[in-house]
This record gives sequence, structure tokens and C-alpha cells, in this order.
Amino acid sequence: MKTLTRLDLNDARRLIAGAIRHADQIGVPMCIAITDESGNLIAFERMEGGKVTSSTIAIDKAYTAAAARKATHEYGAASQPGAPAYGINSAIGGRLMIVAGGLPVTYADAVIGAIGISSGTPAQDLAVAEAALQFWQAAS
Amino acid sequence: MKTLTRLDLNDARRLIAGAIRHADQIGVPMCIAITDESGNLIAFERMEGGKVTSSTIAIDKAYTAAAARKATHEYGAASQPGAPAYGINSAIGGRLMIVAGGLPVTYADAVIGAIGISSGTPAQDLAVAEAALQFWQAAS
Amino acid sequence: MKTLTRLDLNDARRLIAGAIRHADQIGVPMCIAITDESGNLIAFERMEGGKVTSSTIAIDKAYTAAAARKATHEYGAASQPGAPAYGINSAIGGRLMIVAGGLPVTYADAVIGAIGISSGTPAQDLAVAEAALQFWQAAS
Amino acid sequence: MKTLTRLDLNDARRLIAGAIRHADQIGVPMCIAITDESGNLIAFERMEGGKVTSSTIAIDKAYTAAAARKATHEYGAASQPGAPAYGINSAIGGRLMIVAGGLPVTYADAVIGAIGISSGTPAQDLAVAEAALQFWQAAS
Repeated sequence: MKTLTRLDLNDARRLIAGAIRHADQIGVPMCIAITDESGNLIAFERMEGGKVTSSTIAIDKAYTAAAARKATHEYGAASQPGAPAYGINSAIGGRLMIVAGGLPVTYADAVIGAIGISSGTPAQDLAVAEAALQFWQAAS
Repeated sequence: MKTLTRLDLNDARRLIAGAIRHADQIGVPMCIAITDESGNLIAFERMEGGKVTSSTIAIDKAYTAAAARKATHEYGAASQPGAPAYGINSAIGGRLMIVAGGLPVTYADAVIGAIGISSGTPAQDLAVAEAALQFWQAAS
Repeated sequence: MKTLTRLDLNDARRLIAGAIRHADQIGVPMCIAITDESGNLIAFERMEGGKVTSSTIAIDKAYTAAAARKATHEYGAASQPGAPAYGINSAIGGRLMIVAGGLPVTYADAVIGAIGISSGTPAQDLAVAEAALQFWQAAS
Repeated sequence: MKTLTRLDLNDARRLIAGAIRHADQIGVPMCIAITDESGNLIAFERMEGGKVTSSTIAIDKAYTAAAARKATHEYGAASQPGAPAYGINSAIGGRLMIVAGGLPVTYADAVIGAIGISSGTPAQDLAVAEAALQFWQAAS
């Protein structure tokens, strides 16, 4: 047996609060998903105006960032045509997301969950995910 | 009717043991899947630290290598933009893997099963798959 | 944040060894799947003669027992025609298994993983799962 | 390694010919699927007038009969409400068929493939599958 650390629901709520705060600042309503370290959903909110397609995309960005322990945009860079991971985006029934906006949440060098953001440009999605992490870290 | 040859469970265990040996040498914990020649799973292990996303990816790399009788990275080369097999990666619900790490297991010029490795870089995954094949061949 | 306990690969191997021992005693080759407490696969073996359909079924029995923290046969009883959970068997794309053979693995009152067995009758599958748990507990 | 016996394409064509002969006799156009012993499709024909839904159902009946080494109607009997395998019909994404019309093809006590029939009543589907097996056995 082994022990591990995981986000709890209060952490998830705080991450969502931080994401909403930044989304409001830039004026882009977002879908926001928080998963545990295994990629299973803890909390989700679609802000007023968030896209319906982005519900699944945000959840899958968080799933990928948690379960692969990697920012989704890193997969984007590694899977361009000619690059070694080319074609990875359709893996796991298309759940493996390579577009920016999914970030692992880490604590003491371990991935304890992830956040996934979708509805804006990939750069906006990533900025909101980063702001959410900073908000959560400041409060922890 | 026809007769064919297939990996048995002992072969599968030996292939996994060879994969773990090399994964330990390079310090990258892996997901390791062995299928029969029809692409059906015989055995699987997720090493401590192997990625959750890589469970499905390793199984699907082995499935592809067995059932298409081709190393997954050969599909990667054949499906670059402009190449004839472009877009093949999303076939079969995304199970057709084109990233390195899936290799057929052959005996007497016939595919008798396959191995799929995932969690490292594609080059690391392929190296572990190759080492597993060599370990199995040496023991056979 | 919170901490939790999870089966490791050695536990998974021991559970599989215990399952095989009992399957050999009753003369029924089985598919054996071990997942972590989140339902993600750790290890799998299809014994010589285990059924191909049972690979998925064993994995999904373990998934259900872990992620729902319940023996699969308890869902069978609760979902008979007229019962409150009637129809639950087709949930999650059919992954929610209600046939006997999936059991949670518990430690200190927490679910830390699960075992799923398939290829025999449901009663045989359950007996092998129970024997595997006893074998693992005796060794722990 | 181990060796096994499998239907070849000539066997599959002969099984289809036998199925069509009986389907014509009873005046019910059928979908006819032949798989190998692993459940992978070898040949398929939808007779003029066969149902579109029955294409998938015939393939999945053959898949189940091969990969579970059991007539599909045996699962039907074993999975009635209150019976041990209740709920098994939704397993494997709904591919596990429990309605009559899927039969294993055996040779020397081993399953070497299967036939699946659909478009008539379950009794008609089963009768056509049985007639196909007799036609194939007589010719072998």
C-alpha cells in the first residue's frame, strides 16, 4: 500500500473562485473543471455565457493534466507534425487534450489534481488556469 | 480451417519482466500491455509512477501493433500531413495509435502478439518495448 | 487537501496470485483485474482459457467495485425489475457491472482498490475474488 | 507459445451460404456475420431485405458466441431477472448479446469461430444459425 495526497472539495471551490475572478477581469465567461489526481471530476462550473462544447473540453483538459501529470499545451508542442507525439490527440477516445488550458495542481512535488479551462482562446484559457492556481496557492 | 501460433501467459509475463527491467534501468516507470495476435489483452502492469492515461494508451498501442501487424511509429511516419494515411490516428474510436511504443511480437515470420509501452517519451517507450522483445527472445 | 491509501503494484500482484490459486483449485481459468481506489487499472492477467469477453468484464467489475465502493452483486440485488436501481447496469456506457465477481479491497475501513473476476459462473467469479482477498490479507 | 485452429475465409463463405439457403427456405432475409475465435469479423452479408440494425446485432452475436464460447441464448436464460447473470446484456458497451442467434463454431472440442444471425425472430435467427453449422459440417 501507499499513501497519496489529493485535492478536497474546498480546494476545488477555491480554484474555481480564482478562475472566475480572472475570467471576469478579462471578460470571457469560462467552463471550469477540477479533477483529482486520477482525473476524476471533483467540481465543475459553466459561467453564464460559457460554451456547451467547452464543458467536455474543460473536463478532458483537467483529466489529461492530472492523469498524465503534464500541462496540456506541452502535449501540443510535442505533437506537432513531425514531432514524436504526433497524433496523440485522438488517444483515449479523444479525451487526451493537447490544447492549452489544462494544468496539474501540485503540492510537495506531487500532482494532487488538475484544472481545465475552456471557452476562450487557448491563451486565455491558460491564463485563467494559471490565475486560479495562484489564487489557490495564496489561500493555502 | 487454419492454424496459428499465439503468445501464452508465460510469454506475456516474460515480456513484462523484460520491459520493467529496462524501464528501471532508464528510471522511467511505464505502463506495459501485452496482447495476443488478435489484439486482445493478455496481461498488463502499471509500474509505480506509471501514468493513468498511459494505461489505455499502452493497451491501444499493443492492440494496433498486433491487429495491424505494424509498429505504431510506422503509422506515425505514414500519416504526417500530406501523406496517404493522414488522419488514421482517430480511426477505431481513437484506438489506432501512431505514436512509438507499440511493437508486434513475431515468431517464424508470423505476428503472434504485441507489446505496448507508455508513460515516457515516445523514444523511451519504444526502447523499452525493444528491450522487452530482446529479453523474451533470449529466454525462449 | 486530504490523504488516502491505495493498493500498490505488489498488492495487485499478490491479489492476482491468490485469484489464480483458487481458480486452479476449482479448475476454471479466469480473467483477473486489479484497479486502484479510483477505478484505474493497476494489473491484469487472462489465464490460459480465460474468455476474451471477460477481459473487459473483469476490468469493469473492478472499476465498479472501486469507484462505487460496493460489491457488484449488491447492485444486482438492488436493480431487479421494480427495485429502485433498476436499469443501472447500462450506465457509464455499460461499464457499471451488476453481476457478481467485483469486490472492493478495503483497509482500515477505506476502499483502497478493487478486484474483478470473470470467465466462470457469477458464483465462481465471486468465490475467486473472495479467495484472492483472503490470500492478500493473510500476506499483508 | 501455443497453437490454435481458426476458421478461414472459405469456411466463412460456406457458413454464409448455408445460412442463406435456410433463410430463403423460411422466407426471412437475414444479416449474417462470421467471426474468428477471438470475435473479430471474417465475413458479413446483409441479404436483400435484411435490417440495418441487424448488421450490428449479428456481428455482436457472433462476437459474443466466439469470445465467450457460448450460445447467446444461454446467456438469455442465465440472465433473467433474479438469475445470477442478470444485467450482463449491457456489458462491453452493449456488445454482449443474450438474444438467440449467436452460436460458436467448434472443431475437435475447441471454438474456432462463430456465426451470428439477425433480422427474424430470435427463434428464426437461431434456426438459421443451426442450419448454417450443419451445412458447414456436412461440407467439411
